[in-house]
Amino acid sequence: MESLSPKKIRILVTGGTFDKEYDEITGKLFFKDTHIQEMLKLGRCGLTIDIRTLMMIDSLDMTDSDRKLILEQCQACPDEAIVITHGTDTMENTARVLGPVIQSKTVVLTGAMIPYKFGSSDGLFNLGSALAFAQALPHGVYVAMNGKFFHWSKVTKDRASGTFREV
Amino acid sequence: MESLSPKKIRILVTGGTFDKEYDEITGKLFFKDTHIQEMLKLGRCGLTIDIRTLMMIDSLDMTDSDRKLILEQCQACPDEAIVITHGTDTMENTARVLGPVIQSKTVVLTGAMIPYKFGSSDGLFNLGSALAFAQALPHGVYVAMNGKFFHWSKVTKDRASGTFREV
Amino acid sequence: MESLSPKKIRILVTGGTFDKEYDEITGKLFFKDTHIQEMLKLGRCGLTIDIRTLMMIDSLDMTDSDRKLILEQCQACPDEAIVITHGTDTMENTARVLGPVIQSKTVVLTGAMIPYKFGSSDGLFNLGSALAFAQALPHGVYVAMNGKFFHWSKVTKDRASGTFREV
Amino acid sequence: MESLSPKKIRILVTGGTFDKEYDEITGKLFFKDTHIQEMLKLGRCGLTIDIRTLMMIDSLDMTDSDRKLILEQCQACPDEAIVITHGTDTMENTARVLGPVIQSKTVVLTGAMIPYKFGSSDGLFNLGSALAFAQALPHGVYVAMNGKFFHWSKVTKDRASGTFREV
Repeated sequence: MESLSPKKIRILVTGGTFDKEYDEITGKLFFKDTHIQEMLKLGRCGLTIDIRTLMMIDSLDMTDSDRKLILEQCQACPDEAIVITHGTDTMENTARVLGPVIQSKTVVLTGAMIPYKFGSSDGLFNLGSALAFAQALPHGVYVAMNGKFFHWSKVTKDRASGTFREV
Repeated sequence: MESLSPKKIRILVTGGTFDKEYDEITGKLFFKDTHIQEMLKLGRCGLTIDIRTLMMIDSLDMTDSDRKLILEQCQACPDEAIVITHGTDTMENTARVLGPVIQSKTVVLTGAMIPYKFGSSDGLFNLGSALAFAQALPHGVYVAMNGKFFHWSKVTKDRASGTFREV
Repeated sequence: MESLSPKKIRILVTGGTFDKEYDEITGKLFFKDTHIQEMLKLGRCGLTIDIRTLMMIDSLDMTDSDRKLILEQCQACPDEAIVITHGTDTMENTARVLGPVIQSKTVVLTGAMIPYKFGSSDGLFNLGSALAFAQALPHGVYVAMNGKFFHWSKVTKDRASGTFREV
Repeated sequence: MESLSPKKIRILVTGGTFDKEYDEITGKLFFKDTHIQEMLKLGRCGLTIDIRTLMMIDSLDMTDSDRKLILEQCQACPDEAIVITHGTDTMENTARVLGPVIQSKTVVLTGAMIPYKFGSSDGLFNLGSALAFAQALPHGVYVAMNGKFFHWSKVTKDRASGTFREV
């Protein structure tokens, strides 16, 4: 069992609702810095974690070249366990870019329906579950949302309900 | 991989800091009802979960017969995945009662350092990770705290720092 | 002194940032219901209060006929103390419609820079101060923001800083 | 009207539920530092305020000599508007020490039923109302709780309901 537990976890930050904030001057939502460190602190997280911010974008704006960058970062990462924070709208698309290529690592994509800063966020719950899945699932690429994990080849977001399900 | 994912998860509630509240009339901390349902809703949890409240106590007040009840409930439970919410002070003691007996289920004990209702709680993070570990770890009894999982035979709470570590 | 304290306070709700919510399906901000009742409960408010929702709009969308409606409601209201929740962007415009007409009541406009539901809102602070000013200030029309009160004829929002100041 | 608005407000901090925190190591409530600055920042307060921490105690532990100190600080204070944060249990006792002596200042005592750090606190609402009453009420000593103000000679806390009422 102990062999399942990775020494270190890499978190790749790409933005998404997770990190959206409310600009009180303009009244608009925007991205500033990631809240991942703050969330890990709130969770009293004791894991050895290395955080890299790759981009801070809405996943609807994510391009093929952005996904290529994410893939390259997963491949270059020396750690076997990777969590990617990502907008939920195109999370499945990125998973399908990574899935066929990443074989010898456990990569878990997660996100949030409500920004972390807005009080009633699912973000902390999702981050906790994603970090756990990254430690305990076999190598492969997964989406972790709604307390569940989904294999990259079998997941879709139901846009009407805002929840993920198997396909 | 799909074989790892249990159909249903049982949550056994025993109280602990997780569920402490502040009584504004007396100025004391007390237990009323569990907040697990509210936390699962906040996490937009889509898992099929069955919650049973066994007791609502501070784990420093937990007796041998309380632990016997928890063990019996784990044994009687038809579900293969069980999460137990528990005070952190004696979580390792309960784990050591369950560990040698429970063989064909994955049981994960978790708790919180700060009450869920107090805003800055680690509870939601811990609940997310415990539910994930209960789905993805091999059969056995574990403690999930600080983003990590610990085998029941090798865990202790460091009381000075309030964090769990391997022994 | 007791003569200063009104028997009942009317709250007129017009929307504004106060009541904006985040739609987790569309990722947009929107208005649903007012949070005033919830805020009064959180503040353990014991005042006798009558809440009327006149509209739920961004104050940038407020028309002359909307302001006419607000004025008529203030005039028709039997209570001497009135609090109006309002978007901050055009709060001073509405105040200048009410100010020259309302003579024998204390009307206090207030709002928020951050939606109440977003955790770090100034809304509860502003509501507390507006209700207090409505009880304790002489008849007239005022804006209550940033802990201060401003006469309707001398107030403007500094859009760069998002704070109100005397002119 | 403008003559009512004081140039500067003094806040005297004495502790009380307002400033209680949860010690996650011991599981007990305790006092560390005051949260008044943080609350004023959250409220985007633009008033000129001078904060003095006189003591950090539960008001049940407040002695005659503590109340003498509070009185002396009110007398020595050059500002005409003073807010005192205070435990609710003996707030009326302190008010009755100050009331007969303080004539040419507006002193407002306020507190909270729930600690500010616990998320669902009435503290921000009460602080907003106390600062407003301190600006707008005639000279005298008052208690501001539940959105209301009470003259020092006519206030009591109903311990069963945790609310203040006129006597």
